[in-house]
Amino acid sequence: MHPFQELIEKFNQDFDTLHFPSQPATLYEPSEYFLKIGGKRIRPVLCLLGNELFSDLHPDAFLAAKAVELFHNFSLVHDDMMDEASLRRGQPTVHTKYDANTALLVGDIMVIRAYEYLQPIQSNHLSKILGLFNQTAREVCEGQQLDMDYAKKATVTIDEYIHMITLKTSVLLAASLEMGAIIGGAGEHNCKHLYEFGKKLGIAFQIQDDYLDAFGDASLFGKEAGGDIKQNKKTFLLIRALEMANAEQLITLNALLASDPADKVDQVLTIFKDCKVDAWAEDLKQKYMQEALAHLESIAVVSARKKPLIDLANYLMNRIQ
Amino acid sequence: MHPFQELIEKFNQDFDTLHFPSQPATLYEPSEYFLKIGGKRIRPVLCLLGNELFSDLHPDAFLAAKAVELFHNFSLVHDDMMDEASLRRGQPTVHTKYDANTALLVGDIMVIRAYEYLQPIQSNHLSKILGLFNQTAREVCEGQQLDMDYAKKATVTIDEYIHMITLKTSVLLAASLEMGAIIGGAGEHNCKHLYEFGKKLGIAFQIQDDYLDAFGDASLFGKEAGGDIKQNKKTFLLIRALEMANAEQLITLNALLASDPADKVDQVLTIFKDCKVDAWAEDLKQKYMQEALAHLESIAVVSARKKPLIDLANYLMNRIQ
Repeated sequence: MHPFQELIEKFNQDFDTLHFPSQPATLYEPSEYFLKIGGKRIRPVLCLLGNELFSDLHPDAFLAAKAVELFHNFSLVHDDMMDEASLRRGQPTVHTKYDANTALLVGDIMVIRAYEYLQPIQSNHLSKILGLFNQTAREVCEGQQLDMDYAKKATVTIDEYIHMITLKTSVLLAASLEMGAIIGGAGEHNCKHLYEFGKKLGIAFQIQDDYLDAFGDASLFGKEAGGDIKQNKKTFLLIRALEMANAEQLITLNALLASDPADKVDQVLTIFKDCKVDAWAEDLKQKYMQEALAHLESIAVVSARKKPLIDLANYLMNRIQ
Repeated sequence: MHPFQELIEKFNQDFDTLHFPSQPATLYEPSEYFLKIGGKRIRPVLCLLGNELFSDLHPDAFLAAKAVELFHNFSLVHDDMMDEASLRRGQPTVHTKYDANTALLVGDIMVIRAYEYLQPIQSNHLSKILGLFNQTAREVCEGQQLDMDYAKKATVTIDEYIHMITLKTSVLLAASLEMGAIIGGAGEHNCKHLYEFGKKLGIAFQIQDDYLDAFGDASLFGKEAGGDIKQNKKTFLLIRALEMANAEQLITLNALLASDPADKVDQVLTIFKDCKVDAWAEDLKQKYMQEALAHLESIAVVSARKKPLIDLANYLMNRIQ
């Protein structure tokens, strides 16, 4: 058993290599570029933690972890195209640094590379892992579609937003954990609770993400300051503010959504604070975190084995970037 | 054993269903639309023929066939975006009928659906099938990248073009056959010869495709008449014509490539005929067809079992659309 920080290091050592052949360079050089600009590697580490919850680290867990990381990067490359995002982790996105056709094919080759990493997994686990991976991949695409659909919708409820976030973000965290657990030989009951732990943790993670985008220190966060607010993104915070605002606040907020004044971010943040959206988000995050921990509690292994996962969950919930 | 026409019908019966759930309709309705506009279903039928070469039809061959067809459609949807093609099989492409973001995600969900079809294949074959499928999928993407790279290159040789076509088209035909053969219990030697048969057949198929685009009856072919010529596409025919043209023809041809006169297609076709590019293409097609048949000859099963494959090869080589 290892602390999660050590597993991140172990994964990074394994992952810090070329993932593609050299030719055609017009396809593979941009693919390596994007993988090199980093990321927190939360998903692959969840896979390793899921494995160590039940057994010693197995080489197959590293294969699944790499598949998950490749899949995550595929979804980022294509999502950035759809969102017309120019920066990711503070660096130019693939379609910005190269062009749209390159980014399209880079995403495609990354998802195929993900399946290449899964292929050598021992055959008694392969079908189950592949089934879980496929289902998750499909749900992530559905989540991205809902995200685009919601951008065009006048009103989105908190429940709709949670449904979308569950698909777009949470299920991949959940599946990462469960893939590790399957490789570790976990039974159905334990797998399901671990999956639910990941799902709830993922929602708490997204609440934190939305919070940081609005209230965090942009210089640490690697994205544009108040980027969500500038784009009128329907986040947890905006949806709640639209629900809670009084008549006067609602007029101001809707006017801000329909315009683009220089101090838009500051004005929206003032309304968020007046509506106590920040405190509400903190409470909601804690609620999901407690639900997540209750599922972890239900997993039938000695408590000591759960410590690295609890540490990671706490780290994610208290991160400032 | 069945004639290939019967296997096409069998496949179509199996395939003529919804491949996705209903929601989100913004994602799945366009996906079903594209699968519904048809296609010759050559690749899935090769998979069934590969299976029947060695054993009775196995349900897993239908799964592999559906995976191959979904993958092929994924590549068409994304290729059409990159090529800015507005029609496919005489119908609007996905990015034309809907929009680019929809087409991007439709392609993504199709490739995932392909892997979903593979997942229930019996576990003694799954790893091998998945490995072959992954390798092929990667090569198809590499072929598409080379195709885009070549469009920007001043000169492309016949060898370079054949390399690109092998990746973009042939390997999927070859892999379809081999996946069927693996499911049919074929050994390594037979699998390799069947794969090579498919690869050579694929090149012959592409020569025929290029020929039909230039000299075929556009009303039957379902694409724009002389579409390749209008787009200055570096096909077998144009590459050969540029190699064979005399000084005067070369000046005319280069002038036509740099302009867009109303009778461009007719003028280019005249040069093609003067350079005997049509007869050359026919000879080259026959050469690859003979090489393909020699590999089929080397497969250790009784000749009678090979008849449906030979019939399909002849049908493909003599098609007029």
